[in-house]
Parts: sequence; structure tokens; C-alpha cells
Amino acid sequence: MVLLLGGSGYIGSAFVTELHRRRIPFLSISRAEVNYSCFVTLRRLLKEAKVSFLINAAGSTGKPNVDICETNQAEALLGNVVLPKTVSDACEVAGIRWAQISSGCIYSGAFINDNGVVRVEKNLMCPPLKKLVALRPEVVSGYREEDPPNFTFHDLPCSFYSGTKALCEEVLAHDVNAYIWRLRIPFDEFDGERNYLSKLQRYERVYENVNSITHRGDFARACLDLWCGHAPLGTYNVTNPGFVMTHEVVDRIKRILNLSRDFSYWQNDEDFYRYAAKAPRSNCVLDTSKLKAAGVVMRPVMEAIEDSLFNWRSAD
Amino acid sequence: MVLLLGGSGYIGSAFVTELHRRRIPFLSISRAEVNYSCFVTLRRLLKEAKVSFLINAAGSTGKPNVDICETNQAEALLGNVVLPKTVSDACEVAGIRWAQISSGCIYSGAFINDNGVVRVEKNLMCPPLKKLVALRPEVVSGYREEDPPNFTFHDLPCSFYSGTKALCEEVLAHDVNAYIWRLRIPFDEFDGERNYLSKLQRYERVYENVNSITHRGDFARACLDLWCGHAPLGTYNVTNPGFVMTHEVVDRIKRILNLSRDFSYWQNDEDFYRYAAKAPRSNCVLDTSKLKAAGVVMRPVMEAIEDSLFNWRSAD
Repeated sequence: MVLLLGGSGYIGSAFVTELHRRRIPFLSISRAEVNYSCFVTLRRLLKEAKVSFLINAAGSTGKPNVDICETNQAEALLGNVVLPKTVSDACEVAGIRWAQISSGCIYSGAFINDNGVVRVEKNLMCPPLKKLVALRPEVVSGYREEDPPNFTFHDLPCSFYSGTKALCEEVLAHDVNAYIWRLRIPFDEFDGERNYLSKLQRYERVYENVNSITHRGDFARACLDLWCGHAPLGTYNVTNPGFVMTHEVVDRIKRILNLSRDFSYWQNDEDFYRYAAKAPRSNCVLDTSKLKAAGVVMRPVMEAIEDSLFNWRSAD
Repeated sequence: MVLLLGGSGYIGSAFVTELHRRRIPFLSISRAEVNYSCFVTLRRLLKEAKVSFLINAAGSTGKPNVDICETNQAEALLGNVVLPKTVSDACEVAGIRWAQISSGCIYSGAFINDNGVVRVEKNLMCPPLKKLVALRPEVVSGYREEDPPNFTFHDLPCSFYSGTKALCEEVLAHDVNAYIWRLRIPFDEFDGERNYLSKLQRYERVYENVNSITHRGDFARACLDLWCGHAPLGTYNVTNPGFVMTHEVVDRIKRILNLSRDFSYWQNDEDFYRYAAKAPRSNCVLDTSKLKAAGVVMRPVMEAIEDSLFNWRSAD
């Protein structure tokens, strides 16, 4: 029996769909039903429900965005650090394997190959836009799983949200029974407040940057492929291979959804952080070769984006 | 066998002294010897050393002061929240009782009886000094153990240090096997960088306020009295009864140590936080009647201060 925590959330619900599709018996329990934040309660649940694998998709992401975590610090720490620690300890005692949904937002930037010299560039912020021209795939490479996170409480400033997610990974470094599955900026074909493709359409102005991003359904499939395929435990970047610049995504949105409106862009970081955002934002590229080497295939990022837009289901 | 974590620290070493004095067998282990932050390692240690009670005096307080925790956020969270959670889970599995050293710094202010109307006054800051005149013992009462902390991540701004200590108590609220022993501003007769009576002598200017404070040796004795006397588990304010205004302590220092120098005071919060401190400071009064009701007696605060000064051992 698989125990899914956070099954009603944006990512958790993708696991519900995929577990159903695969006919894998699972138990999706809400904290209102069973307070699994309590170590004793969670241990009892693991035993009584004969749980053999646990997926922790519960956490505190902040609504409408991570800025909320700057003021809801206790909630962010309880959801993103203390809960995973409780799960880790309980699974250790029960002798079962488990998976933590993590995030690539613990990195900022990418590796840039500058005429043969590879360096970390933490701020890929694009206005003036001409800076983007250089970001050809052969110039940019992403962070690998073993690269130390660089957008964390150890590398202030970071967003409080990213700080908690990085701390979670640091805490779980002791845990030899865990998968850590890293998502980045989820999207899919279902219009909604958590969908990146929807968010871009609703922003008054768009923030140009470079990111690896993840199709939500592809994510759940890839993660379960890792588990079902007995891939070695440990950390995996689970994003659609490649990276996108924001204007490329906007371009596809306009073209495929036939939008006639114009999108305007923040012209610099100063304005963006003065008017639209409070906490520093992670923008980064992740390397997905470990996932591929484990035999798990995900669609290239632009294919996943275009497919989502061709199958767009408007919320209206 | 008692296991003491953090025995080399300022508070932990007071437990070493007191455990020796009482001839209670104990094991004081450093993290360099055994990485007890690791759940599996700690569980093994509890079992192999046949531990029957654990005292966690390890934590991250910040040196030279709590301002360091504003930038060392990961360390503060790991030491003050994640480690106690690890200890809590491990003791639960081992079926043993334990004690967490907590702090009164999760409160700010006191209750003020204003002509029969009792209200919380979060800022007892004293300049202009005349405000102090009203703080007679019959007007001021301290926070009780069941009063919700009000200097926490839920009540921003707080210091990051206080936030972590309050979050620790919130996390341990599930734990029915734990004592939570709250200290406030330790001092004793041994001159040193962590001793409040030393700090006051070394500050260029003194910050006037009102606080409950704790003699370090009295603290260890009172805590062990609780445990040895089989007092009910739960939270205890462990400060010397009463409260002191900073200028009263300075007055005793000058008089008893025969200091001829003058002490100058910050004239307002604005200057104090501009020049001397970064994070907001907790200043508060704690109620100690629960400790007394449990049969544990501590000296009145001014008696403990004067006694420390009469027996002063200079570090020079």
C-alpha cells in the first residue's frame, strides 16, 4: 500500500491520477482526517495501513505565490522542513522507502560556457534582452543533483520558501531510504492558478528569465517510473529536458491560443522587485541526465508546452 | 544513564557540574564524537548506552549574540528546531523521557495592571526612563507557561533566534515525553562572554529594559530537581523569581565590584537598533509560580545577582 500525503494539492493530485491509471493501491489522507504531522500518529498509520511506500507531496508553497512564505515563516518551516523530518524518522523506524517532493528553486542561474571557460552565473535576468541572445543550448548547462544548492539560507539573500526547501534536502541528506524528486515551475493543459501557462496570461507584466520547467503529469509519471523501475534512491531533477526563456513561452501562448493582446515585460529587476515581487526569485536551469540515465524519458520542454497549449482547457 | 547533549556549552556545562555533584551517572557526548543529529545514529546511541533520560542542551545561540542567527539561519534552524525534533522522535521510539532547554525569549513584554485593567505590553523599553517608574512588582506580572508565545515567526518581526526557539516549542507540543525548561539571560559569578553580568560591563552603552533572568547554576539545579522530584512533564519557566530593570543590575555591579566608571545608556530604541543591534530583542517577564508549585525553590533574582557579584571571579 502506497501512502500519499498532500494528495489534494496541485502536485499531489497528479500523483492521484497517475496511481489510479497504474492501478497501484494507495491511500490519500488529509491532515484533517489524520494529523500525520504528529510522529506517533504517523507511525501508527504506517503500521495499521501496512504502508510499503510513502510519497510526501504535502508542503507549504504559498498562495498566490512564494512571497507569502516571507511572512508565513512558521507555516513554511513546519510544512517544508519539520513534516519531511517527521516522515523521514517514521519511515526509518518502519523500515520503508519513501519520496519527498522537492524543488529546483534551491538553485539560481546556470553554468555558462564562456568561450571554453565554464562559470556559474547566478543571475540570468534578461533585460536588457540582448543578454538572452547568448543563451544558446550549447552555452548553457544546468545544475546536476550533486551540485550544492546556491539559493539557500546559507547563501542569503534567498526567498524564505527556497530556504526551507533547501534546508529540507540538507536535513534529508542523512536519509538513505528516500527519493528526493525535484520539480520546477509546474504547468500543464488545465488552466488554473498554479499553472505557469495560466500565470503568464494573468500577469500584468511578464518577468523575462531562463528556466527549466516541469509538466505536472509528466512529473508524476517520471517519479513513479523511478520507483516502479527500482531506480537507485537519492535525488533526481525531474524537469522536462532543456530550458525556456519566458518570451519563448509567451510566444507559444499567443500563437497557439490565438491571443491578440500584447504582453509587456518588466524592464529591469529593480522595477520587478519594487512592484511585483517581494522575495528574491529563483530562476535556474537543471540538468536532467541522471533521470535519463535511470531510464526515465520525459518530453523535451518545448514539446510539453506546445502540447499543453494545443490541448488547453480553459477554466472559464 | 543520563545522556547530555551540548555538555560543552554554557548551559550544558552547568548540567555537567550539577550531575557530578549529585553523583548521577551521565554521558556527555560531543557531535564530533557521535553525530547525534542523525536519527539513526542517535537511536543506536540511546540503545547502546542504555540511556534512561536525555537532556538536550545543544543548540545554536549565536556568538557574540543572537544577531548572528539573522544571517546563520540554516544553522539556527538545524540546531534549534531540527535537532530537538530528531531527539523527540528518537526518545519516542526508545520510550524514554527527555528535556529540551528552551528560552523565555519567545515572549516580549509583560502583563501590566493598569488600575485594575490587565493588558499585555509588548514593549517595555524604558527610555524615556520615567516610564520605568510605574513598573513596581504589583503592577507587572509575567507570562505563564500556557500563555501563547508572542515573539515568534507567527508574530513578525521577531529575532530569527527567537523564531527558532518558539518553533521548537510548537513542534514539541506533540511530545508527551518531554520537559521543556525555559531559561532567560544566564548569569553567574564566573566572568565570561556569555555571562550577562560580564556583558553589561563590556557594552559601550547599556540598553535599559525589564527582564526575568536566570542564574546558570540555579537553573541546572532547579531543572534536575524537577526531574529527580518526578514533577509532571511539560513546560516550566525556570528563572529566578521576579524581574530586574537593567539600571538596577548596573547599580549592583558598580557598588559590589567597586567600579568607579560611569555607564551610559541608549536613549531610545532607534539608536540602539541603528548602532548596537540588528535583530529585535526579546525583553520579558516570566511567571515562575508553576515551578514553585512543583516544589522547586529558586532564589529571588536580586539575591542571586548580588551573591554572584560578591563571589565574582574575574576572567583577567
